[in-house]
Amino acid sequence: MNDKTSVLTCELVNLSTRKLKKIQTMKRTKVVDVLKSTDFGKEVVVKGWVRTHRSSKAVDFIALNDGSTIKNIQIVVDPSKINADTLKSITTGACLCVTGTLVESQGKGQSVEIQCQDIEVYGLCGSDYPMQKKGQSFEYMRQHAHMRLRTNTFGAVMRIRHNMAFAIHQYFHEHGFFYFHTPLITASDAEGAGEMFQVTTQNLNDLKKGEDGKVSYEDDFFGKMTSLTVSGQLEGELGATALGQIYTFGPTFRAENSNTPRHLAEFWMIEPEIAFIALPDLMDLEEDFIKYCVRWALDNCKDDLDFLNSMIDKTLLERLQGVLKNDFVRLTYTDGIKILEEAAANGHKFEFPVSWGMDLASEHERFLVEHHFKKPVIMYDYPKEIKAFYMKINEDGKTVQGTDVLFPQIGEIIGGSVREESLEKLTSEIERRHIPMKDMWWYLDTRKYGTCPHGGFGLGFERLILFVTGMQNIRDVIPFPRTPKNAEF
Amino acid sequence: MNDKTSVLTCELVNLSTRKLKKIQTMKRTKVVDVLKSTDFGKEVVVKGWVRTHRSSKAVDFIALNDGSTIKNIQIVVDPSKINADTLKSITTGACLCVTGTLVESQGKGQSVEIQCQDIEVYGLCGSDYPMQKKGQSFEYMRQHAHMRLRTNTFGAVMRIRHNMAFAIHQYFHEHGFFYFHTPLITASDAEGAGEMFQVTTQNLNDLKKGEDGKVSYEDDFFGKMTSLTVSGQLEGELGATALGQIYTFGPTFRAENSNTPRHLAEFWMIEPEIAFIALPDLMDLEEDFIKYCVRWALDNCKDDLDFLNSMIDKTLLERLQGVLKNDFVRLTYTDGIKILEEAAANGHKFEFPVSWGMDLASEHERFLVEHHFKKPVIMYDYPKEIKAFYMKINEDGKTVQGTDVLFPQIGEIIGGSVREESLEKLTSEIERRHIPMKDMWWYLDTRKYGTCPHGGFGLGFERLILFVTGMQNIRDVIPFPRTPKNAEF
Repeated sequence: MNDKTSVLTCELVNLSTRKLKKIQTMKRTKVVDVLKSTDFGKEVVVKGWVRTHRSSKAVDFIALNDGSTIKNIQIVVDPSKINADTLKSITTGACLCVTGTLVESQGKGQSVEIQCQDIEVYGLCGSDYPMQKKGQSFEYMRQHAHMRLRTNTFGAVMRIRHNMAFAIHQYFHEHGFFYFHTPLITASDAEGAGEMFQVTTQNLNDLKKGEDGKVSYEDDFFGKMTSLTVSGQLEGELGATALGQIYTFGPTFRAENSNTPRHLAEFWMIEPEIAFIALPDLMDLEEDFIKYCVRWALDNCKDDLDFLNSMIDKTLLERLQGVLKNDFVRLTYTDGIKILEEAAANGHKFEFPVSWGMDLASEHERFLVEHHFKKPVIMYDYPKEIKAFYMKINEDGKTVQGTDVLFPQIGEIIGGSVREESLEKLTSEIERRHIPMKDMWWYLDTRKYGTCPHGGFGLGFERLILFVTGMQNIRDVIPFPRTPKNAEF
Repeated sequence: MNDKTSVLTCELVNLSTRKLKKIQTMKRTKVVDVLKSTDFGKEVVVKGWVRTHRSSKAVDFIALNDGSTIKNIQIVVDPSKINADTLKSITTGACLCVTGTLVESQGKGQSVEIQCQDIEVYGLCGSDYPMQKKGQSFEYMRQHAHMRLRTNTFGAVMRIRHNMAFAIHQYFHEHGFFYFHTPLITASDAEGAGEMFQVTTQNLNDLKKGEDGKVSYEDDFFGKMTSLTVSGQLEGELGATALGQIYTFGPTFRAENSNTPRHLAEFWMIEPEIAFIALPDLMDLEEDFIKYCVRWALDNCKDDLDFLNSMIDKTLLERLQGVLKNDFVRLTYTDGIKILEEAAANGHKFEFPVSWGMDLASEHERFLVEHHFKKPVIMYDYPKEIKAFYMKINEDGKTVQGTDVLFPQIGEIIGGSVREESLEKLTSEIERRHIPMKDMWWYLDTRKYGTCPHGGFGLGFERLILFVTGMQNIRDVIPFPRTPKNAEF
């Protein structure tokens, strides 16, 4: 069947591909690499978008950026060598392919530049370009989220976001965790953690009703009511009690009508879960993990952090270095309350009065972290009534082995716990709380068959990015934020 | 405010944490590390689940597995040293903490074993344990997906899945791509790629209707009708035309009522998108990328692949090595059709007759890959009518720069294209196809403002895992599959 004609055809095809490659224009060099090069006199091709174009009689300067770095490459153009109309048409936002010679820069602010030989215009950019002007408000940027990625600030944030995601995968891989994909569409509600989005394939204009007059899910895609998950933890526990150590890293959803700078309806969460871990080791893991991420940012995102430190938050680098420098405080909830009560007794005004059993408000967390200890705090042994049903109950019967990591500016950045591994205790807690567990027989099976001590924590990815970038609004650290009344792009 | 008493309290807390750490039991060693150790005579602690327990008068053998590797550590127990009732209670699935001495193994099949000194039982396991018996059907395993993770096969698949995800992040990071999180909840339909799941916060039993009698989305969470995305490509193009090179890696949804071994309603997809790339380079990237993943598996998942090769698919390793050994064929659609037509003329029977313009069926793809070339094929320049609106139209006006990678057994594993960068051509194609673009003004803006040549591709993650593991059903390569009428766990 493999006859000669066909083989020939194939070889001709391969030849033509090779030929096609040769006649292609020279390969482009990324701006990040050009800026590091000292190969002066060499011909290079760079491609990117115009940030600025300054003209004079003798020379034109074009600052070109291709997204690989926050820095631009300066293109020096002799206007007599380029068609005057073409040169004039090159405005901010235009996309160019520039061929030229790499030379040492005469000017300040850069070490290399390109003496232009030729410009090919890929795409012009009209004066209605939304990113034309500098210094637009963040709210304006959000309305143009599809174009804000081309600005210095959002380029920096997105490159740091990539680096933090990569650091997380690297950390867990190095430490023998397996990345575990828990489902997003779920028929159960993990911890009653919040309002959920319903997922359906029914035609809302023609809903099927049951005999009781209520909507019947019989013909819906999954044959029952389903929602978007608020946490992968319970499924993560299934993974950890089989594979030993797993982590999730995926989108998570809350249908809360919260129009605040700290809430998203769709966000990314990291949830490691570890078999055979006890509370002190869990707290060590939390500290080690988050320091690894911060160190990664300082080691790998210098240019972007320098930019954000100078333009967005002048204390950013200092705060990141502070996290690395200090051991995190280990503080029981009970001791934390004592410190806050003493502070109140000594005249510090809190909006919400302090008493044992309360859920700490942001003002309390910040007092402990920013004012009292001046370093991150890992709080543990919380009152059981303010924590979730699955946390391991201490011998005192009042507290559970929950552990939150409290950070300056951000407040709670990590929440975790050792899980209750006793089927009896877990079941009785579920009953005491009247939690409907009919759809969660599988979760209880982990305690029924070879149960083991285990624990884990959750980190809201965007909270981490807020901390590492110094940005103030969570809508500005994810490409296309989902918030009440906003699913644009 | 930072008074002495509080500082003291804090120090006491830190002291008690340190003390707590000291009195903890010895740290466990993972089975994967114990098996590599030659530190004979050393006391070790291992924790895990019992795979088998064989008893005799003189000695008990317990095979313990902790998920870190497919291999078990053999625990050798002198029954006179352990409480007889305890020892008897230890059955398949029980969870143990074993303290003992590492010794060279006398038996076959392992190089080290542990002479048991003490056993702590974390959790017993009743005889109703669903993973009790070996050799259960895959369908049975799916019904117990929460427990199948504790078996050899699913442990192997999940560790390989982790490694493939890590290899993907590693590849793109090394090559200067940025991980870009495109939204899952969307108000637009990327390419009409399939049926979508609707997302809503409305109470289906009490829907608000508009004046026209139809459901009003005014009060829904996003104020409009929203769905789960079928592709992140269009948003990915926004990223690439700002940051240069991005990739997505996240869940994707199709509400197709397909009960097949190759379809999931919720699956993970990888979609790189690259500015300034032309078709030959895009095909090179596809080949390089997928070879990197396969090489990673061979280099990092040896034990698991050996197991799958012996238990699931005896040609697995050979097929993986075959991918690395061969250059992928580059073949235009038109030449592919010629080969198929010749084969038909020479007597090969195809179920679906071959003619230019048709969408290739699985039998055609497999003929080319498995029969004719006997290696992977990258097909390109497809008829425009069978491909999506955004693909770059060739000068012939009939074909587009689409490129699919065809693999043995799997068929299409990658689908990609160079995108049409001309606003005029793209708009006219959209109009010609009557695609509603009212919600996609932002996508067209990439062509309006500084448009650039670009392209990318999509890889269904589970298709890759099928190929790399030799598993036959896509429901067996994701922890908790979502399929019609099934959202369990």
